[in-house]
Amino acid sequence: MYGEGVRGGGLHQPYTPRLIIEVETADGGTGVGETYGDGKYLELARPLAAALVGRAASDLNGLFTLADELAVDAARVDTAVDVGGLRGAQTVDKLRLSVVSGFEVACLDALGKSLGLPVHALLGGKVRDSVEYGAYLFYKHAAHPPGIASEPDDWGPALDPAQVVAQARLFEERYGFTSFKLKGGVRPPEEEIAAVRALAAAFPGRPLRLDPNGAWSVETSLKVAAELGDVLEYLEDPALGTPAMAEVAARSGVPLATNMCVTTFAEIPAAFASGAVQVVLCDHHYWGGLRATRELAAVRRTFGVALSMHSNTHLGVSLAAMTHVAATVPDLRHACDSHYPWQSEDVLSERLRFDGGRVAVTDAPGLGVTLDREKLDALHRRWLDEDFAALRDRDDAAAMRRLDPEWTTPLVPRW
Amino acid sequence: MYGEGVRGGGLHQPYTPRLIIEVETADGGTGVGETYGDGKYLELARPLAAALVGRAASDLNGLFTLADELAVDAARVDTAVDVGGLRGAQTVDKLRLSVVSGFEVACLDALGKSLGLPVHALLGGKVRDSVEYGAYLFYKHAAHPPGIASEPDDWGPALDPAQVVAQARLFEERYGFTSFKLKGGVRPPEEEIAAVRALAAAFPGRPLRLDPNGAWSVETSLKVAAELGDVLEYLEDPALGTPAMAEVAARSGVPLATNMCVTTFAEIPAAFASGAVQVVLCDHHYWGGLRATRELAAVRRTFGVALSMHSNTHLGVSLAAMTHVAATVPDLRHACDSHYPWQSEDVLSERLRFDGGRVAVTDAPGLGVTLDREKLDALHRRWLDEDFAALRDRDDAAAMRRLDPEWTTPLVPRW
Repeated sequence: MYGEGVRGGGLHQPYTPRLIIEVETADGGTGVGETYGDGKYLELARPLAAALVGRAASDLNGLFTLADELAVDAARVDTAVDVGGLRGAQTVDKLRLSVVSGFEVACLDALGKSLGLPVHALLGGKVRDSVEYGAYLFYKHAAHPPGIASEPDDWGPALDPAQVVAQARLFEERYGFTSFKLKGGVRPPEEEIAAVRALAAAFPGRPLRLDPNGAWSVETSLKVAAELGDVLEYLEDPALGTPAMAEVAARSGVPLATNMCVTTFAEIPAAFASGAVQVVLCDHHYWGGLRATRELAAVRRTFGVALSMHSNTHLGVSLAAMTHVAATVPDLRHACDSHYPWQSEDVLSERLRFDGGRVAVTDAPGLGVTLDREKLDALHRRWLDEDFAALRDRDDAAAMRRLDPEWTTPLVPRW
Repeated sequence: MYGEGVRGGGLHQPYTPRLIIEVETADGGTGVGETYGDGKYLELARPLAAALVGRAASDLNGLFTLADELAVDAARVDTAVDVGGLRGAQTVDKLRLSVVSGFEVACLDALGKSLGLPVHALLGGKVRDSVEYGAYLFYKHAAHPPGIASEPDDWGPALDPAQVVAQARLFEERYGFTSFKLKGGVRPPEEEIAAVRALAAAFPGRPLRLDPNGAWSVETSLKVAAELGDVLEYLEDPALGTPAMAEVAARSGVPLATNMCVTTFAEIPAAFASGAVQVVLCDHHYWGGLRATRELAAVRRTFGVALSMHSNTHLGVSLAAMTHVAATVPDLRHACDSHYPWQSEDVLSERLRFDGGRVAVTDAPGLGVTLDREKLDALHRRWLDEDFAALRDRDDAAAMRRLDPEWTTPLVPRW
């Protein structure tokens, strides 16, 4: 749905499968949620939807009990760490939780609308009136490779430091973002160091982040940390896995963030004990929803670890959802990531807006968004179209092979 | 308000100061909460109450922000570990949180009543229809020492193993409790070992607990653990402080529970890292309320530590509150403690009931309890009575001195 971000694992596909969930309550109310939409998620969502009939929208703890009972085909769980959009290692539990999260948000939306309360109030109430997001900079070509049609964009290419800075300036102009994250692990580290240096020169004092998605060795990570330590807010997943991250953290003074080595509660003890992570980037989908995100917030607060939020390629509902929960976490001190500006499509009747890099926290009941059924129908028809069947499971390597038929996902560490 | 429990720190006073909090909403609704009622809590509750005027009952996260701003007289914070009813070390933060918890429960009650939802539904919904409690056995004399009048009780003395077993049988007969906790640290360890052995013989296979409130050295703790390991569900706070607990845990196979060395989020990292604690006994008051209790549940679940709940001498509102939150924690696998059967007085229009040792989880809006204003007024008048002024701050040592004027709180470890 956007230009063509390049990252270490391949190329962002022009379209990303997403699942939009709508719950209907007995009194005629509805609520909307969203989560990942690859086939393996759909396979779990169908039986969970069937199991929910007759239950109260407020029965959110019960969702997890039901999900525990869902049979998961273990063969569908790809245990490679860099699978499915950089979400960390997949597990059966994480698949289930990702599905639950869509239903949880839909139930919270329905419940809030029925009670006349915004979702943030169902989470204990907002402690801020707007949530800060950061610009998400991508190396990109000017257009998608030939093959599947996709919308053109007006961002232009970003293949060298000057073009990366130009992209950042557009983000600042259009949305007021004041912090910038560069998706790295794409170019040799020296080039990415140069790009971040160029950003630091163009935006002195602004929070900058670099995320190579685990593409570097410990030694390369330490070299980048030494070169950029004075300008980075944090370095995100420089190396793959908790032991490597712990070594980088111990030997560099740069805070490390992750949405790869800590993506489940089970991964927390080892990572926190070894000091591998200073900022957990929560994706509310794979942690199990908005209430689970608040639980994660409590866990990492207890251990003096910071929180921020990962973005994914969503259709607007999830941006609204993450804004509600982010508004309730008092010690959220890093801007959240957002892919949303890259996306020309969503399913909302009114697009969410960034003003000064921030999304306002609505006090309208529920999520405060309205599903645009025509948009949703159009996207669904495209999903059904046999020409798009290959995109029903996200596969960034396949997208990259349209550029380079010989291309395979690089082994990590790549540098 | 009950016979006279004896414990290591002195004698339970016949009356315990408690604070009942009522919030009124703009639409005429009300909600009730309860917390500790010593002077230092009242001093914080008054300005917090004033600060709440005009805020939404749903603004629960905001309560903590307001509480952070409350000035606490540091001189009022007794940092001795064994102060104020065995609640672990006092801190300014814990004092604040204990006060917040009373308001949080009152707001949840008001919100639930206004929305037509039980408090458990505001916490994500119950996962069980009743909550199990355990019998709380005390060494006790037949009556309170002369001095302040108190209600007589029909429990009789419990000064030797046979009498302890008789007390347990009464608990089983009257309330159906199937697990038993003996408040120890009162008699020499050999006598307490004999009492637990007598309980094990009388109730074979039942969960038994012994809680000396840190009265033992590590070596004594290990000796007791070795003697009783085969019959104890867990040993509660055998030795004082995380390092001593960690040593006992490492050298014995008996799970250790605590409501003394882990009573705040700040105490968790060291205790969990050292394996000092296998069961955290949550007192929702000092953890900061019902939502904080759910956060604690998430933290300790992440680290594979079990949860149960500590009881305190409350007036019924807090038993209702803890029952709601306990009903929402899926992996609550130990019966909660309850002092309630010992108390002849509460402030409820209808006493809560134990059937088969369990309290039913109500689906009535809010907490599902009604304040009996006549009872509350009578208790308040007694609190105002100058004859009771000495009881406005809990001081179990003072109560013990009425028995033995030379008595001072024993140094720990006592054995």
